[in-house]
Amino acid sequence: MALLLSYPRRHPSIHLLILSAYALFLLPILDGLELGGDGLYREILRDETVLRLKELGKISDGEGYLERTFLSPASIRASAVIISWMKDAGLTTWIDQMGNIHGRFEPTNSTKEALLIGSHMDTVIDAGMYDGALGIISAISALKVLKVTGRLQRLTRPVEVIAFSDEEGVRFQTTFLGSAAVAGTLPESILQVSDKSGTTVQDVLKLNSLEGTANALGEVRYSPESVGSYVEVHIEQGPVLEALRYPLGVVKGIAGQTRLKVIINGSQGHAGTVPMKLRRDPMVAAAELVLTLETLCKEPNKFLTYDEECGCFTEESLAGLVCTVGELLTWPSASNVIPGQVNFTVDIRAMDDKVRETIVTSFSRLVLQRCDDRLVDCAVEQKHAAAATPCDAELTSRLERATRSTISSMAAGVRRAGGETPVLMSGAGHDAMAMARLTKVGMLFVRCRGGVSHSPEESVMDDDVWAAGLALVNFIDQNAVDAAAATAAES
Amino acid sequence: MALLLSYPRRHPSIHLLILSAYALFLLPILDGLELGGDGLYREILRDETVLRLKELGKISDGEGYLERTFLSPASIRASAVIISWMKDAGLTTWIDQMGNIHGRFEPTNSTKEALLIGSHMDTVIDAGMYDGALGIISAISALKVLKVTGRLQRLTRPVEVIAFSDEEGVRFQTTFLGSAAVAGTLPESILQVSDKSGTTVQDVLKLNSLEGTANALGEVRYSPESVGSYVEVHIEQGPVLEALRYPLGVVKGIAGQTRLKVIINGSQGHAGTVPMKLRRDPMVAAAELVLTLETLCKEPNKFLTYDEECGCFTEESLAGLVCTVGELLTWPSASNVIPGQVNFTVDIRAMDDKVRETIVTSFSRLVLQRCDDRLVDCAVEQKHAAAATPCDAELTSRLERATRSTISSMAAGVRRAGGETPVLMSGAGHDAMAMARLTKVGMLFVRCRGGVSHSPEESVMDDDVWAAGLALVNFIDQNAVDAAAATAAES
Repeated sequence: MALLLSYPRRHPSIHLLILSAYALFLLPILDGLELGGDGLYREILRDETVLRLKELGKISDGEGYLERTFLSPASIRASAVIISWMKDAGLTTWIDQMGNIHGRFEPTNSTKEALLIGSHMDTVIDAGMYDGALGIISAISALKVLKVTGRLQRLTRPVEVIAFSDEEGVRFQTTFLGSAAVAGTLPESILQVSDKSGTTVQDVLKLNSLEGTANALGEVRYSPESVGSYVEVHIEQGPVLEALRYPLGVVKGIAGQTRLKVIINGSQGHAGTVPMKLRRDPMVAAAELVLTLETLCKEPNKFLTYDEECGCFTEESLAGLVCTVGELLTWPSASNVIPGQVNFTVDIRAMDDKVRETIVTSFSRLVLQRCDDRLVDCAVEQKHAAAATPCDAELTSRLERATRSTISSMAAGVRRAGGETPVLMSGAGHDAMAMARLTKVGMLFVRCRGGVSHSPEESVMDDDVWAAGLALVNFIDQNAVDAAAATAAES
Repeated sequence: MALLLSYPRRHPSIHLLILSAYALFLLPILDGLELGGDGLYREILRDETVLRLKELGKISDGEGYLERTFLSPASIRASAVIISWMKDAGLTTWIDQMGNIHGRFEPTNSTKEALLIGSHMDTVIDAGMYDGALGIISAISALKVLKVTGRLQRLTRPVEVIAFSDEEGVRFQTTFLGSAAVAGTLPESILQVSDKSGTTVQDVLKLNSLEGTANALGEVRYSPESVGSYVEVHIEQGPVLEALRYPLGVVKGIAGQTRLKVIINGSQGHAGTVPMKLRRDPMVAAAELVLTLETLCKEPNKFLTYDEECGCFTEESLAGLVCTVGELLTWPSASNVIPGQVNFTVDIRAMDDKVRETIVTSFSRLVLQRCDDRLVDCAVEQKHAAAATPCDAELTSRLERATRSTISSMAAGVRRAGGETPVLMSGAGHDAMAMARLTKVGMLFVRCRGGVSHSPEESVMDDDVWAAGLALVNFIDQNAVDAAAATAAES
């Protein structure tokens, strides 16, 4: 090696020869590698994106677990970090009156409707670091690739990334606050909804120097004419892609969702003195109803009869039916006191709205029956309901095309099975449900280990994060970049 | 009337006649009435006692509901008030190293063991104002009657009122901290038990300028030789006296008690995406176990078989069996998340210790079985266990005698049925259980409306409060006052 290095000193022309070879061949390769010249952009779409996911995953209000709710202290810290990444990708940024963060690239004299790409920055309690965050960061990374490869300027339409301030609804028990505001479907009454401590949505907005008025909410709204489509990347939160050994899948539609709160009042009393037969115990009534809900959703045919409710249900329409009691509260919550009140949440989802509505009605009727039997007083409150949302077929096929070209171009390291890109239904609700009220929506699911989500066990392989980012780059390339100009610039 | 008043002016001797009649007859009656000369002491044992119950019932850590736990800020305020009432009754007062409040009258040169009368000053959450407080205040009022009638000095033995600092065990989930310390059965390890916020018993003691050391605990202990007996007045917290239309009843014994904590771990996940059949849901497992416990305790014969467990149980031994789930906690407690963990408390009581132990074993076995079926991991922790406590027969008959003389002397206003003083078993645990480890114990139950307790609905008629105080006065008179000296002083 020392020989090689010493040789040029004696023959200057050779020196020139080496430099030009370096300029002609090695530099582009290194540059490409450095910038993903192989068209895969590993450093941005994989390594940097994973680092950013970990960084955002540590910004939490919880001690030792991830929790970031609507406009909480951790959410404010997260906003600043997300804005810096958006700027790094060459986007113009702002925060709207609902705390959503926007990063947009506006091509000069483009009259076309914008392509919006987004997901949510809030989390459930004790969350994983991919749910919501993956959709935001992979969108920013995709646009950073376009920036560093000079393609941002050749966009034919505005492209905007939105980090929605609330989707999970943990703090105010109403979901999609961020995206519903952008879609213009958020009722003014939302401002007076309060959390467990009695603080209202309006209070929180004002605390964070946002107006918190009906007018201000109106300003958040996008006009349908200004938006061409909305695309969201999100972890599958289910076991299908892993079972198919496929990193990505497109989404046919999102299940409809109903949230109830069941409140049971009995007679509070001393655990030691009230004989079992004289009790009006809301705890055992709640237990019976939790089991009733499980049976209703595991074997719906046992409860849904043809004539009375809605007619027979096809196996397929019942397939996606899931029911969950995620929170139960006892009052006064002491081991030696028969509770006076127990309330619990109910979350019912189905692909078929008719199935869901029938289950809600059947369950509500069973609640009242069982409570009568047990001489306790029950009420069923509906907290939230959203119809099933079909994704746009055309948009979904474009996402499918982008996925196909991604998978075929990916390095062997991305384990994948042969065959078509999987098409799935989403049991989880997503901001796309709210955005579907504004524009055409499409979703791209990313494989996650064991289908586990809403849990610190939530996990996505780095290569799959890479694949998701690349699919977005390809999708934008194929749908929002002036192909002719792009080819001219590269030849 | 005017005539009467003007007459004496003209005839002075008449004047003298009236004054002496006044002195001889009217004054004692007025005085007696004022001091209960009818031997009923209405002002002290009824009116003042009820006022004090209401005053203590307002000293709370809860906003809009009564909650006063071990050495909480409200407990410290309550201590000062109780001490002032003890002093008002002529007692010498002090606070021991476990926060119990003592008020004692030490007759000169008495060598007899002390008569202790007490109950607890802490409450459950959202409590009633009689549970515990009635036993303290009626004891103080009874001694005040002895003081104002000059009988305190003729006591033949020391009489001491104790307000125990913790009986309900709400804060540290271990009961009888106060009385167990006096009885000398509190293990040193108790100092390291912590509450939900991680604060230990030791921390709380030190925060309230108590030593919080094992030695200091040792000092709280009474030597058996120094104590003759312990008597406790307490609301029945059950429906029997009301059904019998009797204000007071004596207690044959206190049910044994076991407290368990059941912890269930499943797999936390997204409510929308994990199919019902793939779930390991701790919430539905907990619901199933809550119902299992109810059935086990409503129809124990279905579960307890002769050969395996303990042999057949008599109807009577099963009679007092009660089981309660008072507190259930879900984690992470969000409506759109299948919980990762659910834990709940179990409170099992029975008059017959063999029955209780068999129920605890059967339930624990059923927990593991059902959890296996549901593929969740379960653990059953025993938090507390106390054997059934028989009351002392001799002491109970003396209480019964005092009750009989009380009822027969009471004004017609105290509605009562004919017949014997009722004899009851107590399903609720009381400080007498702990004190039974130190000395002979006896209890006096007081009727309460609907048998409701551990609830703001808890209610005792003022006349029944009066009867309880009077029964204590009669009991002390009959057992701790020098009868000869008393009669000589009164003739």
